[in-house]
Amino acid sequence: MYSVTVRGHMMIAHSFRGEVFGPARRLHGATYVVDVEFRRADLDADGIVVDIGRATTSVHAILEALNYRNLDDEATFTDRNTTEFLARHVFDRLVAAIRSGELGDNGRAIEGIKVTLHESHIASGAYDGRVIDAIAPA
Amino acid sequence: MYSVTVRGHMMIAHSFRGEVFGPARRLHGATYVVDVEFRRADLDADGIVVDIGRATTSVHAILEALNYRNLDDEATFTDRNTTEFLARHVFDRLVAAIRSGELGDNGRAIEGIKVTLHESHIASGAYDGRVIDAIAPA
Amino acid sequence: MYSVTVRGHMMIAHSFRGEVFGPARRLHGATYVVDVEFRRADLDADGIVVDIGRATTSVHAILEALNYRNLDDEATFTDRNTTEFLARHVFDRLVAAIRSGELGDNGRAIEGIKVTLHESHIASGAYDGRVIDAIAPA
Amino acid sequence: MYSVTVRGHMMIAHSFRGEVFGPARRLHGATYVVDVEFRRADLDADGIVVDIGRATTSVHAILEALNYRNLDDEATFTDRNTTEFLARHVFDRLVAAIRSGELGDNGRAIEGIKVTLHESHIASGAYDGRVIDAIAPA
Amino acid sequence: MYSVTVRGHMMIAHSFRGEVFGPARRLHGATYVVDVEFRRADLDADGIVVDIGRATTSVHAILEALNYRNLDDEATFTDRNTTEFLARHVFDRLVAAIRSGELGDNGRAIEGIKVTLHESHIASGAYDGRVIDAIAPA
Amino acid sequence: MYSVTVRGHMMIAHSFRGEVFGPARRLHGATYVVDVEFRRADLDADGIVVDIGRATTSVHAILEALNYRNLDDEATFTDRNTTEFLARHVFDRLVAAIRSGELGDNGRAIEGIKVTLHESHIASGAYDGRVIDAIAPA
Repeated sequence: MYSVTVRGHMMIAHSFRGEVFGPARRLHGATYVVDVEFRRADLDADGIVVDIGRATTSVHAILEALNYRNLDDEATFTDRNTTEFLARHVFDRLVAAIRSGELGDNGRAIEGIKVTLHESHIASGAYDGRVIDAIAPA
Repeated sequence: MYSVTVRGHMMIAHSFRGEVFGPARRLHGATYVVDVEFRRADLDADGIVVDIGRATTSVHAILEALNYRNLDDEATFTDRNTTEFLARHVFDRLVAAIRSGELGDNGRAIEGIKVTLHESHIASGAYDGRVIDAIAPA
Repeated sequence: MYSVTVRGHMMIAHSFRGEVFGPARRLHGATYVVDVEFRRADLDADGIVVDIGRATTSVHAILEALNYRNLDDEATFTDRNTTEFLARHVFDRLVAAIRSGELGDNGRAIEGIKVTLHESHIASGAYDGRVIDAIAPA
Repeated sequence: MYSVTVRGHMMIAHSFRGEVFGPARRLHGATYVVDVEFRRADLDADGIVVDIGRATTSVHAILEALNYRNLDDEATFTDRNTTEFLARHVFDRLVAAIRSGELGDNGRAIEGIKVTLHESHIASGAYDGRVIDAIAPA
Repeated sequence: MYSVTVRGHMMIAHSFRGEVFGPARRLHGATYVVDVEFRRADLDADGIVVDIGRATTSVHAILEALNYRNLDDEATFTDRNTTEFLARHVFDRLVAAIRSGELGDNGRAIEGIKVTLHESHIASGAYDGRVIDAIAPA
Repeated sequence: MYSVTVRGHMMIAHSFRGEVFGPARRLHGATYVVDVEFRRADLDADGIVVDIGRATTSVHAILEALNYRNLDDEATFTDRNTTEFLARHVFDRLVAAIRSGELGDNGRAIEGIKVTLHESHIASGAYDGRVIDAIAPA
């Protein structure tokens, strides 16, 4: 399996609901340094997994839509904006980008994507899925 | 597959037995920076893989039991304390913690764990296993 | 010059005021990974710059007072909570901790402190000052 | 699954052919920081995945053959030297090393290898394969 | 002293002249991950060292002029393109940018700049200077 | 001021004496990832701070003499082997190497050296001194 990984980041505010979150129920924030790994079994005719320029543009566009925002005010994330959920959100948006051709015709051959959100030097969350299994994101 | 990763560390002395270890047969030591990845297919009702507070507490407790020690003096590790073996030890302890409920009721849904021990900027060892396959640790 | 550096972190929400800040004027957040370097010309009788346990406790206490908070709601930071300002705040708190004896009698010999706040993998801010020059923090 | 990872690096010049590469069609260069992960289900009698000394020697020898070179001048890489292709090249060379006994008799039990080439702080490419599936490298 | 540091990178080919460089006399390449630290004694009215947006734009523009190039073909660097020399080049360009007002009126108050070029995980070169002492770059 | 930094590491066992060290009074160990920064005001005729090959060889030789050892058994370090003290030891050895000509004739122009020992992802110790001020090491 071949893979290519690109990095971006976003800086957001949010709060969590539920006893399990303790002090994180207060409005706080995070820098998420985001690694996106694109995987496929074989390389395309150019010898690459994906046009890294297009892939980077897509990843940055998805993060930019959330950057410098309070996720508590965004309908998509109200009551559900854990690191894990945000990783899945980025995955779903990338699947949609692949299906729309945003990553190029060869980008449609991407089989798997892992999205990792590093929230500090000691903690991260991730979602790793197959593109073909993904249900159409809302 | 969703995952959450937390980091801890320990500083231990040890020595190895066997020609293959060369100068590492002398008593020496290591800082192990330890990354533990918890995985499961679906999130719980709170939208998380595991209560990260409990997970961190469990990881730190396991490392603390070894921290600032000479593993050559610990019965569990005599003659077998390679990085790989230590990674498996942490995995086994975490499986036991999950089964005892230490990671919460929802923690029992964790399917896989990867334990990586970074011993320097250029070398690491790891054990990655499924919780359900794990035999009861001694 | 000898030095010892310890690391901690905090996750906060905030917003900035002023045209120069562009989209960062919106309520957003950051994880600050914080490195604190303590410096002095000579070591104490134990061969150390400072009791690293006490130093870590002080750094963590200062960060904990800000952690999981919206700095826009904290009187100390209203209208002035840039990364640079926060670095100075941590410096001032540490100077106060040294003067109060919180870092031990030998801690009073610390001559300089550098506080670096990493806000992402590509940006950081810092304050570096001499303890003796510091005015009494408010 | 157990694993051990070792790191090396190489500094090469190259250029790419194809519209998709944009400005990277010009002769330029890269430092590749290379992580090689060796995997197997069980440890050998010494409690290790592989003799890390031999593994490091093999990885460094493979990288040294490319280090400080212009890959456009190397027959193996003419017209095909993307990061992904280079990762596969290192994988193939390591499979050959295992089969020749260069990693020791126990090294023959290695089941999988992942080769990751970090080309900057924000991009990497990798090849991950099973040793048994690998066709004999040219 | 306050400081702000931003990161960029460039991927270049080059070769060195002189016995001391050994195999690096062959045409090869490097990824330089570049950290630029801007320093000044006091913050401006906005509570910042420099407009980080403008500073990042300037750093990226300087690196972009070298990115994806063979420095042996650039008149500025013929026979003198060591890591140390490149660090000084970036410093000189930044001094010129400050003097031209590219970093804003407040940017003129920057007193010192350190430019660090990381060429691998184990080596870097840097130039650290005072802006006021810098001679007008050619 | 120009600088070049090279990295090495060592894995040692040791214990500390004194109430302040708490559990670190037990025999334990550490991986020290060691960064050595060489500084000088002007470059030599080859455009470099120091022959990086010679500098790396010297740093590695100094670390190798301690690697895979129990420092409690080494006369030099009995009762005094804190991270800070070890950083000074490496500095002193490098000053001796410079004076003996081990870093080349041009190496004698090195003015300052900073030795940083990273003992984990959250702690380090360092010694930074001027070569000319250094007393002859024992």
